[in-house]
Amino acid sequence: MATTTQSRTSASAQSALGQAFAAVRGDTLKLIEPLSAEDCLLQSMPDASPSKWHLAHTTWFFETFLLERYEAGFEPFDARFRVLFNSYYEGVGPQHPRSQRGLVSRPRLDEVLAYRQQVETRMHDVIDMNAADAGFAALLRLGLNHEQQHQELLLTDIKHALSMNLPSAGYARRWPMTAVQEQPLRWLRVLGGQIESGYDPVHDGTFHFDNEAPRHALLLRDFEIASRPINHGDFQAFIGDGGYQRSELWLSMGWDWVCSGARRAPLYWSAEDATTYSLQGQVPIDAHTPLPHISYFEADAYARWAGARLPTEAEWEHAARVFGPSSKTGNFANSRAYHPLPATQPVRERPLQMFGDVWEWTQSAYAAYPGFRPAPGAVGEYNGKFMCNQFVLRGGSCATPAGHVRASYRNFFPPDAQWQFSGARLARDV
Amino acid sequence: MATTTQSRTSASAQSALGQAFAAVRGDTLKLIEPLSAEDCLLQSMPDASPSKWHLAHTTWFFETFLLERYEAGFEPFDARFRVLFNSYYEGVGPQHPRSQRGLVSRPRLDEVLAYRQQVETRMHDVIDMNAADAGFAALLRLGLNHEQQHQELLLTDIKHALSMNLPSAGYARRWPMTAVQEQPLRWLRVLGGQIESGYDPVHDGTFHFDNEAPRHALLLRDFEIASRPINHGDFQAFIGDGGYQRSELWLSMGWDWVCSGARRAPLYWSAEDATTYSLQGQVPIDAHTPLPHISYFEADAYARWAGARLPTEAEWEHAARVFGPSSKTGNFANSRAYHPLPATQPVRERPLQMFGDVWEWTQSAYAAYPGFRPAPGAVGEYNGKFMCNQFVLRGGSCATPAGHVRASYRNFFPPDAQWQFSGARLARDV
Amino acid sequence: MATTTQSRTSASAQSALGQAFAAVRGDTLKLIEPLSAEDCLLQSMPDASPSKWHLAHTTWFFETFLLERYEAGFEPFDARFRVLFNSYYEGVGPQHPRSQRGLVSRPRLDEVLAYRQQVETRMHDVIDMNAADAGFAALLRLGLNHEQQHQELLLTDIKHALSMNLPSAGYARRWPMTAVQEQPLRWLRVLGGQIESGYDPVHDGTFHFDNEAPRHALLLRDFEIASRPINHGDFQAFIGDGGYQRSELWLSMGWDWVCSGARRAPLYWSAEDATTYSLQGQVPIDAHTPLPHISYFEADAYARWAGARLPTEAEWEHAARVFGPSSKTGNFANSRAYHPLPATQPVRERPLQMFGDVWEWTQSAYAAYPGFRPAPGAVGEYNGKFMCNQFVLRGGSCATPAGHVRASYRNFFPPDAQWQFSGARLARDV
Amino acid sequence: MATTTQSRTSASAQSALGQAFAAVRGDTLKLIEPLSAEDCLLQSMPDASPSKWHLAHTTWFFETFLLERYEAGFEPFDARFRVLFNSYYEGVGPQHPRSQRGLVSRPRLDEVLAYRQQVETRMHDVIDMNAADAGFAALLRLGLNHEQQHQELLLTDIKHALSMNLPSAGYARRWPMTAVQEQPLRWLRVLGGQIESGYDPVHDGTFHFDNEAPRHALLLRDFEIASRPINHGDFQAFIGDGGYQRSELWLSMGWDWVCSGARRAPLYWSAEDATTYSLQGQVPIDAHTPLPHISYFEADAYARWAGARLPTEAEWEHAARVFGPSSKTGNFANSRAYHPLPATQPVRERPLQMFGDVWEWTQSAYAAYPGFRPAPGAVGEYNGKFMCNQFVLRGGSCATPAGHVRASYRNFFPPDAQWQFSGARLARDV
Repeated sequence: MATTTQSRTSASAQSALGQAFAAVRGDTLKLIEPLSAEDCLLQSMPDASPSKWHLAHTTWFFETFLLERYEAGFEPFDARFRVLFNSYYEGVGPQHPRSQRGLVSRPRLDEVLAYRQQVETRMHDVIDMNAADAGFAALLRLGLNHEQQHQELLLTDIKHALSMNLPSAGYARRWPMTAVQEQPLRWLRVLGGQIESGYDPVHDGTFHFDNEAPRHALLLRDFEIASRPINHGDFQAFIGDGGYQRSELWLSMGWDWVCSGARRAPLYWSAEDATTYSLQGQVPIDAHTPLPHISYFEADAYARWAGARLPTEAEWEHAARVFGPSSKTGNFANSRAYHPLPATQPVRERPLQMFGDVWEWTQSAYAAYPGFRPAPGAVGEYNGKFMCNQFVLRGGSCATPAGHVRASYRNFFPPDAQWQFSGARLARDV
Repeated sequence: MATTTQSRTSASAQSALGQAFAAVRGDTLKLIEPLSAEDCLLQSMPDASPSKWHLAHTTWFFETFLLERYEAGFEPFDARFRVLFNSYYEGVGPQHPRSQRGLVSRPRLDEVLAYRQQVETRMHDVIDMNAADAGFAALLRLGLNHEQQHQELLLTDIKHALSMNLPSAGYARRWPMTAVQEQPLRWLRVLGGQIESGYDPVHDGTFHFDNEAPRHALLLRDFEIASRPINHGDFQAFIGDGGYQRSELWLSMGWDWVCSGARRAPLYWSAEDATTYSLQGQVPIDAHTPLPHISYFEADAYARWAGARLPTEAEWEHAARVFGPSSKTGNFANSRAYHPLPATQPVRERPLQMFGDVWEWTQSAYAAYPGFRPAPGAVGEYNGKFMCNQFVLRGGSCATPAGHVRASYRNFFPPDAQWQFSGARLARDV
Repeated sequence: MATTTQSRTSASAQSALGQAFAAVRGDTLKLIEPLSAEDCLLQSMPDASPSKWHLAHTTWFFETFLLERYEAGFEPFDARFRVLFNSYYEGVGPQHPRSQRGLVSRPRLDEVLAYRQQVETRMHDVIDMNAADAGFAALLRLGLNHEQQHQELLLTDIKHALSMNLPSAGYARRWPMTAVQEQPLRWLRVLGGQIESGYDPVHDGTFHFDNEAPRHALLLRDFEIASRPINHGDFQAFIGDGGYQRSELWLSMGWDWVCSGARRAPLYWSAEDATTYSLQGQVPIDAHTPLPHISYFEADAYARWAGARLPTEAEWEHAARVFGPSSKTGNFANSRAYHPLPATQPVRERPLQMFGDVWEWTQSAYAAYPGFRPAPGAVGEYNGKFMCNQFVLRGGSCATPAGHVRASYRNFFPPDAQWQFSGARLARDV
Repeated sequence: MATTTQSRTSASAQSALGQAFAAVRGDTLKLIEPLSAEDCLLQSMPDASPSKWHLAHTTWFFETFLLERYEAGFEPFDARFRVLFNSYYEGVGPQHPRSQRGLVSRPRLDEVLAYRQQVETRMHDVIDMNAADAGFAALLRLGLNHEQQHQELLLTDIKHALSMNLPSAGYARRWPMTAVQEQPLRWLRVLGGQIESGYDPVHDGTFHFDNEAPRHALLLRDFEIASRPINHGDFQAFIGDGGYQRSELWLSMGWDWVCSGARRAPLYWSAEDATTYSLQGQVPIDAHTPLPHISYFEADAYARWAGARLPTEAEWEHAARVFGPSSKTGNFANSRAYHPLPATQPVRERPLQMFGDVWEWTQSAYAAYPGFRPAPGAVGEYNGKFMCNQFVLRGGSCATPAGHVRASYRNFFPPDAQWQFSGARLARDV
């Protein structure tokens, strides 16, 4: 949950809030342009949701947490939506079963779009009235960041669903592939010592989620970090060296996962024809492109095979701050590639592609920072209650909205999750 | 598979075939009029299929078994549909996984409708050329009866899927309910002896499925059969008497089914408010209406509780022939009630509602008649390979196309199936 | 449940009942001689039970259905056993979970043997008092036949459990294998017409289970039946011809069973080294020995491959009566082979090995005979409540106690069951 | 894996090693004295193993990792045991399926005891020859600590298995319960700062597992720790306050665990009669006794309800070192209570019962310390490969052998595990 030190917001900020709201809401709508109403209903596994559900749930968030509190004479658009589009907020009430979101043909897509439209209109009125209220502004920014997270999920979820359809063009138009040069991996030294970790209002922008705080001191040893993420060529070598057949490379739980699923390559990777499924359709595997769609198990096994390890999240964040790559640039969703891209910058003495392209698994279990306190009320369910059996990923991906991430941003998924654009970057002890 | 003794077909028959084809195909399209493209994609369980899939699969049947054989220079509409819309014909090749039919957003509904249109046009040409060919005519009639079966499944499948949506108006407009009078159950005596069972070309029309033949002699004891199906009032008494809590009333497998599902009423029956879900939306339970949506387990347990039993399929067929109710009349899908209706005829000395309203479970396991031989080739997979762990139902239902059933018609489902309009009629020994 | 027309039993019968009781109970004890207390606790799947449980449950049957009714001042041996050793008699009360029978280390084996001993002593007293009571005698004979059934299950269950241990000597000592000659299959003609089926007191002995009655008339067509059961050599040819890879040979449910289990040979059959696991340990496969441990699916697929079919149970029984093989002779458990044996008789114009060696799957679903009525009370749960999704097997096996079966005897198992000594014999239409 | 800085071992050490070996091996045998051969075969869930398997596996460890390397002319006791009693060492080879350990009736218990005896005799010879070899001594100590861990598992596993038997006396004789006084919870302040964590050879004895190293510096905030573990009375208040019905108290995964299991109390806790199942049989719940058998989910929810949190493992270890409770005293397995006991010491300004009674869940996910390296070879699989989806517990329990634990000792289990003697102690921020 966002916190803010502002006690009041000026009229220009009021306008800025309204503009930010309109922009994020508009971005979501653009994402479904290539999709039919039928596409928008697909749910290919319980972890993924239909595009239509994302459209509705993000609207539900504003209706439930903002309109209901700040709108005079509030009436819900449709009282039944309170259950239908609640994701996991027990404090709000019961939820439609997660695994049955793909069975909600009613309301139809056009009715959900009307729901979006009406809530937006009412939200603009409420923004006009309350922009100077710091608590309101904080909740609004939370809602916008929430919607951006669902923009990314919408892309990863529809990718998973369309991959089960006919092998046609996919979600977007194929982008022009250009021949790329190898980026040799270099090891970059980072000095340790007592450092600060977590959200820093000076460098990390005005918004953060509750799980990024409080900023806290910790000790790091000196370490080295790889100049670029693991790419497809790296992983081809791992596969070619029997990586999926060698138990000693894997965590015990990872080895069970390999054996029970008879796995031999990352998700979407077709070893037979050296192609992979992308949101642009089936594309050839390019050795020099960062590798997405690996589980924590695969990232960890690859690191062990390579004689290295994954960084901790504190190491990753510290490296990002020390080397200063900007979270403002990188291959984010606004590139419309919707796929990792090979680095085009010349190699220098700083890590490439830390932001964008692929989320990077760290070896850190997702846990509370010292002194962490979730926000009171139902929005406090946003992050804290998931601090169990998940690992932290950092840096954003090609499906993340530009401007959404920062050095302190913590994403988290269970170790077997593959359907996000999840890759990794190596680290090693000095 | 249909067999025929006709060696040639006249020009008028040719025309009749074309008209029959056009009529059945048109009936299917009418069924999806109340549905959106999103509705047509729903698959609520592996046993049920999306409406769109029914539209495509029935077309696939004509394309695969008729066009491919009889059309000069045959080219498939889309080669990928051969796999996508094959149901279970191993002889034709692999199949898209049954449980993933609801994930096929591509082709879209409008594309499937174009597929239907194109195949129909080509079929009419082929019918013109081949109507005099008895083998062709037999296959065509098989295809039409096949499509009628899927018309019924389309209704039962969409009912199941819509029941998981918001409790709104359902599939069709609510019909005017009229107050009805009780139909007291009467026992009707049927004499046994050596009788004939199975398809009879003299009385059963020109078409039959392979599993209705050969007609064969068997011995029946005298028995009694109920004048009407079990109705909701009957079953309310069973429930009120603790029917779902008394193990002695149930088959062992049925009792496990009751306990593991914590079952207390038939499918769609809401005991709290004495309503049931129908294709017309949520409607009050009417005591005098035949009861649909019971499993074999429930039918069998009810019969034991009532001190009776279910008829064998030979008894049922014999009673139908002896008492002569016509399979031409009854509450079939063309009534547009899509729900069992209370009998309006005065009670006479013959059983009411044997045809239409609800399929009636018999105690007969679905098995081959003596001398049964499935048709050669892939269409031989139509019936024979399912002769295991299923029970026979007779008489058609309110979702069955008018004219589709006859006295010898054998429907079959596993004993736990409830989503068909399956009811029962009691019998007893003399 | 046994019924009897005797209204009184003579003193000699009284003595005979006591002797029969002692003999059957003694036979059970002999079966566990090769087993340790640990062996007797094994439960390798929910369908199978520990030997110790069989010892206790058969005792529970006498205690619950005979001592409790006929013994003055009845006190249970241990009140907790009522639940612990009840198999499935809902009328008696709750049951220890079936899948947890292997977790009952307490009571120990020696305590269960003491339970047996005490109940036997008390039973002999009660037999002395009540032998002249026809109802008592009928229940006693039911108990003895019940115990014989569990003798067979004890053997098939321990075989399954020991097969998961080290590949050592198995249950019994290896018997001397002798070279055998091929028994070519011959087809034997059987005339049909109106025949009688079911228990016949004139030819079938004094006892029968309730499911063998009532005797009833039915019509049979002429048919042919194979002179011997399917043997290992027959099935090697089926396997060699791709039997497990050809979907057209299988029932739909059978094909799913083959694919989901990746099956390539019958249970216990090791294709790599042409051996099979027997109660005598691992033994070479002998082509001329009847084949045990096939499911109904495998029997049905083999018959289809061979251009034949399985007999109905009425055909099987009629053939047994017409050709007159005696149920008194054959390879039953008293041979101590515990494995099918090759026929040593010269081939004549009658079927060999109909009784003993392997149970023979019929194509008949297990169902009630016309007029069937289960016995009142809890013993009525013996047979009737299982009449669903099972198929009838006839003739007994090498694990059946000698004298236990007869022409009218109906065994029944689900179509995927393999761990019984289940084989098959072909039939075909004329 | 143990490491040692010793480069040689004196003759007296040699003797000491042999004595330690004899002592630990003898302790294991004493644990099965109350058990029958049947008890020793029980496996009540895949996570638990039969007592017999523990007896054999600990012997397999010495045979595989010591005899095979250090014994001249090594021959295995039985070559088949290499697979049968391998737990999870992929580097050694394949393993008998974990879930089928309870099906190994052969070898029998007496044969396993003979296996133990023979390996012990050979080990004493090898110890005599190699005690001066530091690598050998380290492996031997690892084997002894490994066997002690299985002594604890033997107790927790047999408790789980016997709990499914008749509610009789249990494993051991009932101990004399004495009335106890309430121990009010006090909060003890601990100063933070830069501290050292991990194995300290000065204070933690001569042995440690690889996962306790390397010792490393970290920063702690000041915190408070509870003077005693959560006891039954505390948890009664939680239950009484609707703890199991209030989603806001639970992690998301924990709430799913509560709902799917319909949980209302800790494992073995019978709310109806206020008793709990212990290794001494069913005993009354005593409010002042530390609470065992809670999952991480329950510990975490209780802490949230109490307005506190669980300590990190670094906080726990630091508190243990600062307050100086001795790991040499406490209620360990040698008390033969096999159950937590109420504290009898007067409350002072230091925490009670940190060692023994119950393992204490920490909020720390089980992970590698900075610079962690597993030992090379198969013994390196001991700890590192389990660093995923587990949480650390500290302090030992009433089932832990005396002398086995120390301040740096890290136990770890998945968050849903309950069958260990797992409790918790609260902490809170200052």
